Amino acid sequence: DRRDFSSSRPSPVVPATGRSINSSPKSILIVNKLRTQPVIMAIDAFLEHVHSTYPGVRVFHEDRPDIPHGAEVWTGAHSQPIDLVVTLGGDGTILHASSLFSAGAVPPVLSFSMGTLGFLLPFHMDDFAKALESVYRGKATILNRMRLACTFYNPELVKIGKDNDDWQVMNEVALHRGSSPHLNTIDIFVDGQHLTEAVSDGLIVSTPTGSTAYSLSAGGPIVHPSLSALVLTPICPRSLSFRPLVFPASSVITLRIGDRSRSPAGVSMDGRTSHILNPGESVNIQASPYPVPCINRSSIAEEPQNVEGAGPGKEDDWVRDINNLLQYNATFRSKALLRHSRT
Amino acid sequence: DRRDFSSSRPSPVVPATGRSINSSPKSILIVNKLRTQPVIMAIDAFLEHVHSTYPGVRVFHEDRPDIPHGAEVWTGAHSQPIDLVVTLGGDGTILHASSLFSAGAVPPVLSFSMGTLGFLLPFHMDDFAKALESVYRGKATILNRMRLACTFYNPELVKIGKDNDDWQVMNEVALHRGSSPHLNTIDIFVDGQHLTEAVSDGLIVSTPTGSTAYSLSAGGPIVHPSLSALVLTPICPRSLSFRPLVFPASSVITLRIGDRSRSPAGVSMDGRTSHILNPGESVNIQASPYPVPCINRSSIAEEPQNVEGAGPGKEDDWVRDINNLLQYNATFRSKALLRHSRT
Amino acid sequence: DRRDFSSSRPSPVVPATGRSINSSPKSILIVNKLRTQPVIMAIDAFLEHVHSTYPGVRVFHEDRPDIPHGAEVWTGAHSQPIDLVVTLGGDGTILHASSLFSAGAVPPVLSFSMGTLGFLLPFHMDDFAKALESVYRGKATILNRMRLACTFYNPELVKIGKDNDDWQVMNEVALHRGSSPHLNTIDIFVDGQHLTEAVSDGLIVSTPTGSTAYSLSAGGPIVHPSLSALVLTPICPRSLSFRPLVFPASSVITLRIGDRSRSPAGVSMDGRTSHILNPGESVNIQASPYPVPCINRSSIAEEPQNVEGAGPGKEDDWVRDINNLLQYNATFRSKALLRHSRT
Amino acid sequence: DRRDFSSSRPSPVVPATGRSINSSPKSILIVNKLRTQPVIMAIDAFLEHVHSTYPGVRVFHEDRPDIPHGAEVWTGAHSQPIDLVVTLGGDGTILHASSLFSAGAVPPVLSFSMGTLGFLLPFHMDDFAKALESVYRGKATILNRMRLACTFYNPELVKIGKDNDDWQVMNEVALHRGSSPHLNTIDIFVDGQHLTEAVSDGLIVSTPTGSTAYSLSAGGPIVHPSLSALVLTPICPRSLSFRPLVFPASSVITLRIGDRSRSPAGVSMDGRTSHILNPGESVNIQASPYPVPCINRSSIAEEPQNVEGAGPGKEDDWVRDINNLLQYNATFRSKALLRHSRT
Ligand SMILES: NC(=O)C1=CN([C@@H]2O[C@H](COP(=O)(O)OP(=O)(O)OC[C@H]3O[C@@H](n4cnc5c(N)ncnc54)[C@H](O)[C@@H]3O)[C@@H](O)[C@H]2O)C=CC1
Ligand SMILES: NC(=O)C1=CN([C@@H]2O[C@H](COP(=O)(O)OP(=O)(O)OC[C@H]3O[C@@H](n4cnc5c(N)ncnc54)[C@H](O)[C@@H]3O)[C@@H](O)[C@H]2O)C=CC1
Ligand SMILES: NC(=O)C1=CN([C@@H]2O[C@H](COP(=O)(O)OP(=O)(O)OC[C@H]3O[C@@H](n4cnc5c(N)ncnc54)[C@H](O)[C@@H]3O)[C@@H](O)[C@H]2O)C=CC1
Ligand SMILES: NC(=O)C1=CN([C@@H]2O[C@H](COP(=O)(O)OP(=O)(O)OC[C@H]3O[C@@H](n4cnc5c(N)ncnc54)[C@H](O)[C@@H]3O)[C@@H](O)[C@H]2O)C=CC1
Repeated sequence: DRRDFSSSRPSPVVPATGRSINSSPKSILIVNKLRTQPVIMAIDAFLEHVHSTYPGVRVFHEDRPDIPHGAEVWTGAHSQPIDLVVTLGGDGTILHASSLFSAGAVPPVLSFSMGTLGFLLPFHMDDFAKALESVYRGKATILNRMRLACTFYNPELVKIGKDNDDWQVMNEVALHRGSSPHLNTIDIFVDGQHLTEAVSDGLIVSTPTGSTAYSLSAGGPIVHPSLSALVLTPICPRSLSFRPLVFPASSVITLRIGDRSRSPAGVSMDGRTSHILNPGESVNIQASPYPVPCINRSSIAEEPQNVEGAGPGKEDDWVRDINNLLQYNATFRSKALLRHSRT
Repeated sequence: DRRDFSSSRPSPVVPATGRSINSSPKSILIVNKLRTQPVIMAIDAFLEHVHSTYPGVRVFHEDRPDIPHGAEVWTGAHSQPIDLVVTLGGDGTILHASSLFSAGAVPPVLSFSMGTLGFLLPFHMDDFAKALESVYRGKATILNRMRLACTFYNPELVKIGKDNDDWQVMNEVALHRGSSPHLNTIDIFVDGQHLTEAVSDGLIVSTPTGSTAYSLSAGGPIVHPSLSALVLTPICPRSLSFRPLVFPASSVITLRIGDRSRSPAGVSMDGRTSHILNPGESVNIQASPYPVPCINRSSIAEEPQNVEGAGPGKEDDWVRDINNLLQYNATFRSKALLRHSRT
Repeated sequence: DRRDFSSSRPSPVVPATGRSINSSPKSILIVNKLRTQPVIMAIDAFLEHVHSTYPGVRVFHEDRPDIPHGAEVWTGAHSQPIDLVVTLGGDGTILHASSLFSAGAVPPVLSFSMGTLGFLLPFHMDDFAKALESVYRGKATILNRMRLACTFYNPELVKIGKDNDDWQVMNEVALHRGSSPHLNTIDIFVDGQHLTEAVSDGLIVSTPTGSTAYSLSAGGPIVHPSLSALVLTPICPRSLSFRPLVFPASSVITLRIGDRSRSPAGVSMDGRTSHILNPGESVNIQASPYPVPCINRSSIAEEPQNVEGAGPGKEDDWVRDINNLLQYNATFRSKALLRHSRT
Repeated sequence: DRRDFSSSRPSPVVPATGRSINSSPKSILIVNKLRTQPVIMAIDAFLEHVHSTYPGVRVFHEDRPDIPHGAEVWTGAHSQPIDLVVTLGGDGTILHASSLFSAGAVPPVLSFSMGTLGFLLPFHMDDFAKALESVYRGKATILNRMRLACTFYNPELVKIGKDNDDWQVMNEVALHRGSSPHLNTIDIFVDGQHLTEAVSDGLIVSTPTGSTAYSLSAGGPIVHPSLSALVLTPICPRSLSFRPLVFPASSVITLRIGDRSRSPAGVSMDGRTSHILNPGESVNIQASPYPVPCINRSSIAEEPQNVEGAGPGKEDDWVRDINNLLQYNATFRSKALLRHSRT
């Protein structure tokens, strides 16, 4: 009865795919970053729909001046448990929702885009009624998107920050020289063993989810989100042989700014800047026990696709996304130049 | 109580690390490709050592004209079970040993290099007595190196070849246009879902073990061998957006030569050329239930290293190999140019 | 009065951009590879147009069974000089036209696509009358696309083949292991100096024109065709530090199959397979004195574009092509996923 | 009789290799950044040697508190012309020397390393007497290393800064989001024509000299320094199809921060941070008329090497450097793992 591929260390790795969410949510948290007219209108419509269709369900919103009418103020996971998170906006909105639950478990997340769909945005806002219905009818399936937990240490290996000050990221932790003109030097350890000294602009430790974000731009591979793995991608390394590395999710990666590093490293967590790490300081990164359970687009598929080889419900959102991404495929000729205007 | 990342399909994924091999081997198979003087002498010394130190143990060798004195002829896994495989030579020798057990389970493999050590070559031949002793004292730990099973289909989806004709590879399956001057077109399916159409020189589906072989040369990431994953790396794709992809080991990847492909694709399995796939023909690739259990170098470590953070027995051969590989690291300046002869 | 950046060796480098073609062509060579219905019809229309609009102009065609009505048989540059080459088809058709003039100077080339435009295909077939008119009115401007001249040597450095057997390529010379399963070893010399030993699938020496062809797929940079340069791009090299290199057009690159190379190398010239080079054999590659004068798309631009910063006539076809190629730009999200069908 | 590949615009491109420096230098400028004990001692020895061997030659030093004994204060190129620059230190020291002559022509530069040799460091300090002698005997040959001139504009296209405020760089101009968490959007124009909109961490416009610096880390090609070219390399672009581009040195590249860019861009010139460019602001980059004439290592070669195919004096420092860099070549196995300590 082994759970992961590793050692004796208790593993935080959780199953990536669950079958469905059984409970019917009693409390919903709406998360939005933008407050544009379309977003405001969409939230109003959503609230009205919930109140009329699912009476008794409470809808919450972060405590902000612009809290929508019909929503209650939410003051954190400790005070008011949430059964379902609904996000409206871009990928950054989900990243923000994840950050609201950085101390522990995350409720299932239903993500709506306001326009273009995306890797983290399975549903279009226009479909919210259908999506909600599939949740309440127990038909929603989830993808547990792995997160990373980070702990920071000073040069004496004393933890920086308070105890429950752990960070959880859904995309990546990125260390970067920022506006310092000089390269930094970072020692990389895997399970305590020295891997290499990196001289570069910085390093990214990414989840499979984050593999299509910053890590991809820096040259990393595209990793299926149901794989439990850590991706280490260097940013502009001086070494020509430093290639992206993929580790089991049971690995602990330690990044330590070299004592003679010419630059400190700014830390970005899912695109939010936090600490500066100075020479001698370090960060420990490992899989978090608290993934983000994301509701799949296939939850609202009308009927099972009979794609050869893929059983009912096997339709994979991600493969469809990558398919779109790789459309740019075939000879670029046939794609890029097709649109050439004739003279 | 299954915990892996897949569906209802029975999963062939096996734990990557086992603690040790308990049984004391009664039959040993020696595998070597080269028959140079040092190899001949090493085999003679090995045979003498086994016969004198472990009386009753039988030593076998492939049926070749040059079968070493003191070894018995081995005519296949069905006729004579083997408890331990000993390879002498380069990485290619282990790949060959793997191919000798392509129908089923592989016995533990103890691999000796004749010179430089390597990713697949944990031991130096000079250490054979010590390594053997650690096996017989039950101290050997293994890394189960995942293999891929391949099945070939004609355009009507009828299996090509006999039923037990399955191929098992340890590094990779590579499809390549070979000496045809034209690009080929290959449709890629993941679990039956169309991923993309690749126009390229070819495609590699690699194990984590193979990620440091051909896939790395083609631009793929370096994947830790204890991760259960498949790596798909395009070879010189026309599309600029086709990046290497990493899938869970539970995925089934289908590569189908496009009907209008301008070239067929030659199939290479661990570097051995086999079939030619013509337009319409396809290959199914998935994790094999039969990994190669490789005995770790750390098996003969004198005493536990007290590397900070890594418990006893946690010393990871692979990290050490990669560390060497990435030594080329830091600024290339300090490495490459150090050796500049002064004028 | 030095013309290039090099040594005393007489340089074949020619200016990349000429202003216009003055002479009014008296003999036109039609080049086509395909003989599909649209191509046949287009050729017929072209021939009719030439005969009626430019009486006295002779139109030639390669000596093939399917020579179009109204065209004369052409038996080579030595027997019948050509003032203008007209190609109909894809990029391969221009490469073929180039190969018809491998012994010496190439007449100006007017290239028509049958569908999608392309890097080597400035004009759409529907515009042939306008394009031809601009030539006869002396308004056509040309881009001299550099070619490479190749000479092959046996291990004793004796030239292989007859004296006027030189090859001229417009895209690239590629050496590749072909269907051999093993890597080959190639020694690279630049102006006689040893650069490195490459262990790889092969090597590409490309012109700037060819930088968007095979070299790009293998990871090479995109080079503006008016730069006089040679691009050396490795194909799947074992070395992680082997990056594409760009040399002045005055360089002579020598590729020599290593004496202990495990594979020979097949030679491809603009996609046509020619020799096999065995261990010890080599090829010398340098800029040819005979570029391909390609007529620019801007030749038929109605009036000078008033793009800010670009003077009249400065409109650059290539920048427009690259612009199209890089459209895939911005976040792939906004491009790739826009088309996501809603569920 | 024009020499470059371009249009009617007067070209600043200069020949990259000159034969020798005729004049015997009367004034020498010493440039050093570090003031470590070995550097101090080396400067003292150098000064003593010059004063005793070349009486009447004046030696200058930048006006700093630590001006060495025997050197005169130098207050700029306008006040005191310099015949020879001597640098002691790393590559950064030469970049600094270049910056001291950013308004106009640069005197020949003799560069000494204090330890490891390098791309910009042909001579070891121990050889200074020999190197100096070759200069005074008229035997020094130079490589004119191209520089880039940059001009900055506000959104109304009014030049930012004073008129003689032009910047000259030897390696590169880099635009980077710095410590802003968000990607920036930069519009790229070539000769006034829009090439693409880049969404990325930033962009590098590099000289061939700089192609082995930051641009290489970001994935750019290695360009021979005697080629007159500009290299445009994106830093972590979102677009997967954005590859490094190489332009003729006659091109003018304009980088303009997009009006809706989420981040400004910090400008780094040869590693020194200067301006911040805000949305709407832009920089024009083109080849400078003032290259850096660097004295070649081959200047002090005892006698012509008779390398096959390379005439006397043809020995190319750069090829030797790259050869060292690419030593990491062949299979990394044979290099990296050779040193494996046996267990
Ligand atoms: N050069 C680069 O590619 C950089 C990328 N980023 C990424 O931006 C993320 C933060 O996103 P925002 O707050 O929206 O900032 P943002 O508004 O700057 O957007 C970054 C872009 O990344 C996309 N993105 C985010 N997560 C993604 C994912 N998992 N897969 C595919 N695309 C994804 C977004 O849709 C957006 O196009 C960071 O976690 C980091 O991954 C941050 C800095 C530089
Ligand atoms: N361009 C390339 O990089 C190519 C690589 N290959 C690789 O060669 C393998 C066959 O090996 P051999 O029979 O020894 O042929 P070979 O004698 O041609 O050796 C190929 C090289 O790959 C190394 N290698 C093999 N497996 C490795 C691994 N798992 N990790 C790191 N290095 C590894 C070998 O030590 C040797 O240096 C194939 O499985 C394929 O991966 C095959 C063709 C081309
Ligand atoms: N993996 C790859 O990318 C390979 C590319 N090739 C290229 O194919 C060329 C021969 O072309 P065809 O006879 O048409 O064979 P083909 O019909 O196999 O076409 C190769 C593709 O390359 C395109 N192409 C050709 N020259 C180009 C250029 N200068 N810039 C951009 N795209 C270009 C063609 O339009 C076509 O899409 C060779 O010179 C070589 O460059 C050949 C083999 C493999
Ligand atoms: N991620 C990266 O690779 C980064 C590189 N740089 C480079 O650093 C340069 C400034 O150099 P320093 O003042 O010495 O700063 P530095 O002390 O931070 O050194 C940068 C490294 O680049 C090397 N270098 C500089 N110019 C080179 C050249 N032309 N070819 C090969 N190597 C070269 C230096 O020897 C040193 O190893 C910048 O012009 C930029 O090219 C700057 C920031 C990031």
